[in-house]
Amino acid sequence: MPTYRLTLEYDGGAFHGWQRQPGLRTVEGELRQALRPLSGAEPELTAASRTDAGAHAHGQVVGVRLDRDWLPDTLQRALSALLPRDIAVSEVSRAPEGFHARHDALRRTYRYLVVPRRVPVARRFAWEVSGQLDLDAMRAAVTLFRGRHDFGAFGRSPRPAGSTVRTVHQVSVRVVTGLGGGQHFSAVVIEVTADAFLHGMMRALAGALVEVGRGRLTRDELAAALRGPSGAADRLTIAPAHGLHQWSVAYAPAVEAEG
Amino acid sequence: MPTYRLTLEYDGGAFHGWQRQPGLRTVEGELRQALRPLSGAEPELTAASRTDAGAHAHGQVVGVRLDRDWLPDTLQRALSALLPRDIAVSEVSRAPEGFHARHDALRRTYRYLVVPRRVPVARRFAWEVSGQLDLDAMRAAVTLFRGRHDFGAFGRSPRPAGSTVRTVHQVSVRVVTGLGGGQHFSAVVIEVTADAFLHGMMRALAGALVEVGRGRLTRDELAAALRGPSGAADRLTIAPAHGLHQWSVAYAPAVEAEG
Repeated sequence: MPTYRLTLEYDGGAFHGWQRQPGLRTVEGELRQALRPLSGAEPELTAASRTDAGAHAHGQVVGVRLDRDWLPDTLQRALSALLPRDIAVSEVSRAPEGFHARHDALRRTYRYLVVPRRVPVARRFAWEVSGQLDLDAMRAAVTLFRGRHDFGAFGRSPRPAGSTVRTVHQVSVRVVTGLGGGQHFSAVVIEVTADAFLHGMMRALAGALVEVGRGRLTRDELAAALRGPSGAADRLTIAPAHGLHQWSVAYAPAVEAEG
Repeated sequence: MPTYRLTLEYDGGAFHGWQRQPGLRTVEGELRQALRPLSGAEPELTAASRTDAGAHAHGQVVGVRLDRDWLPDTLQRALSALLPRDIAVSEVSRAPEGFHARHDALRRTYRYLVVPRRVPVARRFAWEVSGQLDLDAMRAAVTLFRGRHDFGAFGRSPRPAGSTVRTVHQVSVRVVTGLGGGQHFSAVVIEVTADAFLHGMMRALAGALVEVGRGRLTRDELAAALRGPSGAADRLTIAPAHGLHQWSVAYAPAVEAEG
């Protein structure tokens, strides 16, 4: 049974998240429906991240075993034709036998978009925050996340009583210009790369940074929340899902090489 | 009666265009509804451009006379609170008595966005064109539009038997990176500035340029269509409305100064 690695992009606005759920439109559900005519049996499928309802993906990675052998290009074209327009397959390659998109992932990157005013064309893709954001304060605060920490105040383990320790490799807060180039709008992009993320973690980190940017939370209070249960944790804001963009996943060279 | 100049931004996806129509959701209709409680009477209103159903605006200019006197900032805040989320008021200023957003406009700029692959988050804001586009050919062709021409093959006059001669001041075809910065997606942006546009003109110009980019129309054929009725005109493609972004409007300094 050949194994493939798919890279998916989606607009999460009309999905109840990644994971299939009976009676609800989900990305996994749509992908399975598109894969079924291309495979002899129900496909075996693994995904790097289970995105929330409303969250978007730029580089979701999916491992899939199919009964039939396909040239990667042909599979990409067939899937593109069968998937709805809010999902795109940006890459298809062969993966080593046993490839597991989640277990084999070494690093994940998420981006969170904030716009400091109402931007109609961005309203489904960025969190609208009124008033000015103190970017310097946000940049000073985001560095706190770097390294190995217990992120228990910022999310839950996917396993019951599982560890909430994660290692954050890279962080940044920067301003980019959006759709259409030039001065269409400016968005603040919060980017975090970690070995893995807890459930809700990126939205909690983004929410905390925005509170710092608004002057409602200090860097010291954020540092306290990272050291363990504290009063600051109660005041953490969860940023809404529609500003969240799963960005990319990195694998070990051995896994990459086969692709 | 004080006159105001409003700059509006909107996501045209859920509107039947700018102009009010009974029983249909239009931008003008929503704006009038928001203005009514702020004015004693039905507001007198002029708009720089009547955008098509599905087309977006970044800098639509509206002139409005109200029965009551408002500080521009207060009017902006009140309107923002009353307008639906797919419309934003990015600027409000006082305008000279008799200001007419359409008649007083000297130049209009439109942008048209094309993406050369399926990009889920851009699908409502850019035309998805499969395959590669020859940007050099598009750049060579777009210069044909510069200057004073009869654009009769590319649109209709807003007045019956009105002139179809327009003057194009600036044109460009460039590649920008979209939403989220970095490598989220690359879009081709076609930008045209003219004294005025015929109905459908920007979509016809964009459609023709894309056909040139696809190798289906030559620069010479396009030049022939600009010289007058020709076989090439029959093969012109109208680009879909959802890739069209009304961008900005320029007024004479005297009109600007009062603002």
